[in-house]
Amino acid sequence: MQAFIDAVRNAIGDKAVVTDRQDIEPWLTDWRGRYRGEAPAMLSPANRQEVQSIVALAAEHGVPLVPQGGNTSMVGGATPPEEGSAVILSLRRMNRLPSISAEDNLAVAEAGMILSDLHDAAAAAGRRFPLTLGSRGSCTVGGLAATNAGGTQVLRFGTMRELVAGVEAVLADGSVHDGLAALKKDNRGYDLNQLLIGSEGTIGVITAVALRLVPAVAVRAVGWAGVADPQAALRLLRFFEQRTDAVEGFELIAGDSLALVLNHIPGTRAPLTGSHRWHVLIEATAADAASDPAQMLQDVLGQAMEAGMVEDATISANEAQAEAFWRIRDSISEAERAEGPTTAHDISVPIAAMPDFIVESSRTVEQAFPGAVASAFGHLGDGNVHFHVRAGSRVGPDWMAAEAPAVTRLVHDLVVAAGGSISAEHGIGQMKRDELERLAAPGDLAAMRAIKRALDPRGIFNPGKLVD
Amino acid sequence: MQAFIDAVRNAIGDKAVVTDRQDIEPWLTDWRGRYRGEAPAMLSPANRQEVQSIVALAAEHGVPLVPQGGNTSMVGGATPPEEGSAVILSLRRMNRLPSISAEDNLAVAEAGMILSDLHDAAAAAGRRFPLTLGSRGSCTVGGLAATNAGGTQVLRFGTMRELVAGVEAVLADGSVHDGLAALKKDNRGYDLNQLLIGSEGTIGVITAVALRLVPAVAVRAVGWAGVADPQAALRLLRFFEQRTDAVEGFELIAGDSLALVLNHIPGTRAPLTGSHRWHVLIEATAADAASDPAQMLQDVLGQAMEAGMVEDATISANEAQAEAFWRIRDSISEAERAEGPTTAHDISVPIAAMPDFIVESSRTVEQAFPGAVASAFGHLGDGNVHFHVRAGSRVGPDWMAAEAPAVTRLVHDLVVAAGGSISAEHGIGQMKRDELERLAAPGDLAAMRAIKRALDPRGIFNPGKLVD
Repeated sequence: MQAFIDAVRNAIGDKAVVTDRQDIEPWLTDWRGRYRGEAPAMLSPANRQEVQSIVALAAEHGVPLVPQGGNTSMVGGATPPEEGSAVILSLRRMNRLPSISAEDNLAVAEAGMILSDLHDAAAAAGRRFPLTLGSRGSCTVGGLAATNAGGTQVLRFGTMRELVAGVEAVLADGSVHDGLAALKKDNRGYDLNQLLIGSEGTIGVITAVALRLVPAVAVRAVGWAGVADPQAALRLLRFFEQRTDAVEGFELIAGDSLALVLNHIPGTRAPLTGSHRWHVLIEATAADAASDPAQMLQDVLGQAMEAGMVEDATISANEAQAEAFWRIRDSISEAERAEGPTTAHDISVPIAAMPDFIVESSRTVEQAFPGAVASAFGHLGDGNVHFHVRAGSRVGPDWMAAEAPAVTRLVHDLVVAAGGSISAEHGIGQMKRDELERLAAPGDLAAMRAIKRALDPRGIFNPGKLVD
Repeated sequence: MQAFIDAVRNAIGDKAVVTDRQDIEPWLTDWRGRYRGEAPAMLSPANRQEVQSIVALAAEHGVPLVPQGGNTSMVGGATPPEEGSAVILSLRRMNRLPSISAEDNLAVAEAGMILSDLHDAAAAAGRRFPLTLGSRGSCTVGGLAATNAGGTQVLRFGTMRELVAGVEAVLADGSVHDGLAALKKDNRGYDLNQLLIGSEGTIGVITAVALRLVPAVAVRAVGWAGVADPQAALRLLRFFEQRTDAVEGFELIAGDSLALVLNHIPGTRAPLTGSHRWHVLIEATAADAASDPAQMLQDVLGQAMEAGMVEDATISANEAQAEAFWRIRDSISEAERAEGPTTAHDISVPIAAMPDFIVESSRTVEQAFPGAVASAFGHLGDGNVHFHVRAGSRVGPDWMAAEAPAVTRLVHDLVVAAGGSISAEHGIGQMKRDELERLAAPGDLAAMRAIKRALDPRGIFNPGKLVD
């Protein structure tokens, strides 16, 4: 290990090698504080060539690297192993924007660029990078690509897989895969860009990405509707889809979740006066200032109310109110934590199956664990909800350790039975590795392990994650 | 080999095993007649389970399989090896449509379903499958997915990679990868769906695909414009993109190509009265019968003419005229062949670089081979053109054998220098295998070979294609 660190120092200089304990400390723990690792050094290359040198030396010395962007993984995906056998490879110094073109609707960003900086750069160019999520002030575009991140605006523009036009990465032999030309059509064999997206740093280190931009938003409006059940919410989504393509967000919120937010989060108010079992937040945007998404929302929600699929609805009167509606949605997890221990599941099932899944799985879980409370919220339009289970009246000091794992296994079993995914957005990392092994199709698991061995034969990339 | 054929017969019956020479004969030659192989048998399974049995037996007996759909590969991708060491695995009997949902905008089709049958089924459901190409009456959806096919409508809805929502495939160990749930968000490790798309049958046999549908076209209009050069054509494309998202086709045609069509193809007429060095065909559609794409084309082309980027333009007055415009575009290759020997290149470069590439590379090729004529046409909006070089005055009986390979190497060198792809649409197959080896980045080539070995360790899938 020390020989490797010395070799890196010799090859690319002191600036790229951090060994001061105090400087490494913040990056040893995942941001939720659930995983803690050890690492004798953190390497911070300034450019792709330095990444190549580091990877070549890592292969030579047999020292594994843990690629890290903003360290915002929800599954411990960027935390080094506990025994200190690996070093952190931080991409944060590589945060330049080599090119941005409004005409081509493309930007090329180095892996370490922070998402909110990219948002700003796109806005300055009169465009928008549509993907956004809670950690936008910390997460990096390289990490977003490596984990195929999603977020709240996936409905219209997709996840990173749809938004990444090309990937540059350093492979295990120190060579470079350069996909930054962002060719719209390219059939030269296996698509290495797509294979690297979502690979969680296990088969290559993403050093830069070409990203698609979309027209800037000129106007937006947010609607809030009360509905009887998730089935009505899906009917409402289909109703919108038949009438407009301006809907960018369609979030389902249980009445129970709303009540928790109103109880625990200061300054929040119920958007509707009456009581409803389920709620939907709908965001519509337009790139053209002459469009009126608020009027569109009002018209379509009015028709939906006449058709009996909506109980009541309101439209944000101004940007402050739009923000207030989103704040409710974004505060659900915090409100749940204030209420008591909660185990979270980031799952997807086919969209058409989602309403029944929510209703039936909640019932199954609450029957299996009487007193526990199941609650689903999130991106109905993507077939992806956060399925949370609170300890409820079963609360005890060790609920998370003693019972939550069994709850999680039950939820995952129900997801698999419905043809769904046990990780819709957050990836596998170290948190879901065992569950992936338990539940993945054996042939898929074997294929993934064969790919890992083929592309990282010395095991130098992100040890202990995904299928390693 | 005989033991393998007998074992397949025992396992799944006589109906799936074709050994009659006359029945196999049509499938031994690619549809352009450039590659000819041999095979002692053609296996025609009726369902996925039979494919699994065949793959397991092939692995056991070490007999390679050549997956084949409609046998419409442009690169010899579905033609068996010459020495008769492999058998054809025809997917054509598997042509059912297990499900189609207008509400979900999804269809699940078996691999052997013919594209035009899918078009009909989607239309009957009130939807559209937007990808189309010349061989639509023969090609199969499995082959389209395995080759990431494109076609003339890629501008708006993308290639198969964007349109395939999920893949079912039999892997080399006989196991099944089942991605047909078509989850919009799924981050359970490496994306095997995306890896299989475009893999040309070399790492698994695609047995079914989930496909996205889009709204049916209610009205369409086709415009034709004369422009000074490819730069003006790209400016016109950007001009449209800023004003509408209704453009589905944007095809560039050289004046020289138009002249050949008018000379050689009976019944064709020039859309414009004057003479222009370059032409553009623009197709716009609307799902809503109240929309008027013809009026939109007229308005935008009028503004473009005022802005000086268009010399003259016309709009199809009716469907027959729209067809006539497309017939010109679709007849270019035939007209070129009537004129004399032509070597074709299916290439892409970054869209912004395409106009200069066309102009400069044509000049370079014509200087290197005085008397030859270079001509580009095709999908400008995708950065993908067919770059054809005719023998011209250099014609001799052996031009295709003697000089065309050198022309092709020069064109490919120019493409690589421009950051482009030597196969935008057609794949690698056996035709471009050597050029891929010559021109691919060494690290990419090594990674692809490692993937091939990892996922097909016994070499039973499509021998001699891609990186094999």
